[in-house]
Amino acid sequence: MTGWPLMDPYIHWFDLAGVAVFAASGALTASRQRMDVIGFALIAIVTGIGGGTLRDLLLGIRPVFWVAEPTPLLLCSGVAVIVFFTAHLVESRYRLLLWADALGLALFAVVGAERALEHGAPTSVALVMGVMSATFGGLVRDVLCNELPLILRPEIYVTAALVGAGTFLAADSLGLDREPALLAGFATGFAVRAAALLFGWTFPVYKPRPGRDYPPDDPVGRR
Amino acid sequence: MTGWPLMDPYIHWFDLAGVAVFAASGALTASRQRMDVIGFALIAIVTGIGGGTLRDLLLGIRPVFWVAEPTPLLLCSGVAVIVFFTAHLVESRYRLLLWADALGLALFAVVGAERALEHGAPTSVALVMGVMSATFGGLVRDVLCNELPLILRPEIYVTAALVGAGTFLAADSLGLDREPALLAGFATGFAVRAAALLFGWTFPVYKPRPGRDYPPDDPVGRR
Amino acid sequence: MTGWPLMDPYIHWFDLAGVAVFAASGALTASRQRMDVIGFALIAIVTGIGGGTLRDLLLGIRPVFWVAEPTPLLLCSGVAVIVFFTAHLVESRYRLLLWADALGLALFAVVGAERALEHGAPTSVALVMGVMSATFGGLVRDVLCNELPLILRPEIYVTAALVGAGTFLAADSLGLDREPALLAGFATGFAVRAAALLFGWTFPVYKPRPGRDYPPDDPVGRR
Repeated sequence: MTGWPLMDPYIHWFDLAGVAVFAASGALTASRQRMDVIGFALIAIVTGIGGGTLRDLLLGIRPVFWVAEPTPLLLCSGVAVIVFFTAHLVESRYRLLLWADALGLALFAVVGAERALEHGAPTSVALVMGVMSATFGGLVRDVLCNELPLILRPEIYVTAALVGAGTFLAADSLGLDREPALLAGFATGFAVRAAALLFGWTFPVYKPRPGRDYPPDDPVGRR
Repeated sequence: MTGWPLMDPYIHWFDLAGVAVFAASGALTASRQRMDVIGFALIAIVTGIGGGTLRDLLLGIRPVFWVAEPTPLLLCSGVAVIVFFTAHLVESRYRLLLWADALGLALFAVVGAERALEHGAPTSVALVMGVMSATFGGLVRDVLCNELPLILRPEIYVTAALVGAGTFLAADSLGLDREPALLAGFATGFAVRAAALLFGWTFPVYKPRPGRDYPPDDPVGRR
Repeated sequence: MTGWPLMDPYIHWFDLAGVAVFAASGALTASRQRMDVIGFALIAIVTGIGGGTLRDLLLGIRPVFWVAEPTPLLLCSGVAVIVFFTAHLVESRYRLLLWADALGLALFAVVGAERALEHGAPTSVALVMGVMSATFGGLVRDVLCNELPLILRPEIYVTAALVGAGTFLAADSLGLDREPALLAGFATGFAVRAAALLFGWTFPVYKPRPGRDYPPDDPVGRR
């Protein structure tokens, strides 16, 4: 009925690690909004389980993983309480948030792609599922907390998830075992995002012609 | 196939009452955005059925309750039309919106927890399901209408849903009948939210150290 | 298992056309946010498949259509690349975006209503499913890209989807064949939205009494 408790243990630990670091990024975002501890727990839970929940809904796995087995909920709540009482010790909560998000992005990209393959999806679908489950939790976190979503910032973000999921899928199709393929995907995805954070790596972005006439209600013109 | 028409009649009325008051809160939000009557109906429907739809998707109930039986859609549309023609009679539409939302929050918190239990979820999952189905409709309403989500306001909100769902689950595990347990959960959840609205109850919130260096793009600094 | 590849070919082409034009509207929105090509592809995919994904989830079709068969993903990615390299040739990208969105709105309104009927939903549910699947992709696009959702703009928008889905359902219940009923619904829905774009058609909107006392945090007062 449900794929989660029946997972390969290795992917299970990847999944739980991703839940924990995304929960931490959610709790850190809650701290920037000066929420109370219950708000911390809610944002941590939604961020931690968001990507996997979307993945399970789209793949038709029901009920979703944390309904069958509540470990992820308890993990997210524990992380939220720890962050509530220790975040003031951190020099820059925003930097820590970005790094926790980067770890979660790389972990969920490979887990999402692996889950899709396991459920019989073609490679192109597995790639998109990896990217979607890697980015969805952070997106919900940012929308809930009224922050600018990370996917709208100029540094490379979605691409890191794409590279991670793509490396895993390439390694898998070349006949590598599941475990090294997952590790290779995680490592390359994280490396790309880390480079973007450390060196401000960006891609060539779309540049409109100058002098374009924006309509008066054009939000770009106001930014 | 679907759990909804087979529900205990008592929980069915709780559910419909929650749909109606959330629909009213949605229509009142639409009035603040000066929408037309079709916009009123859409926001009322999405707010009214949002929490129950998320609950059914996560629990794996399919199709979701209002696809099997359209009473909730008709109820939401009727509420939207009534609000469209009578909202100008209300002294403060925003206060009325907050009270309708509070009623819906307390109703959906116990209904969500009860539905999860009925579908075999453990207690911790039922608690989270209560909170999520109580807060999701209002959240979608606020995001759609470009309003600050209520969960970001300082007064107690998520906690009221948690207390309501928790009281129901505690009463249920102590062997109380379903009906008094639902009523007890609803009453305590609503009491907590009402106290927050009347007396401005808040929880201790996270306070960062003074003098923290926010990055230039930090939205908190701009608020 | 999945309804999509088994569809009537006619509705299948309607669906793919809607995916393509919504993908174009998403890529054009990405161009307004100066994203890189991967961001273009992500926004194009999410906008193109959003409405159909919500429809399949709510109707209980699993997995959702693009997991079973990846043509829609490849189509959206192709559209994103084309828009990335050609959007600067367009005089007003915002106008083009609005017209692509209008086509998608009319196409998805009839497809959503038809899919709901096919899965045994009553007429009122099919009407709401048409409206939801027509508006959801564009809504996610606008929330992701931090744009004012089109449903909040004063011109007729949701109503066009309602008219299109309603015309299809009326024609169908009068015994018309599926193909002319779909065409009639598409044509009327698109005509209403086109008139709104060309002539600024609006509905009577809700008007509050003057002198209302908004609370200090009322966002309407600040707009």
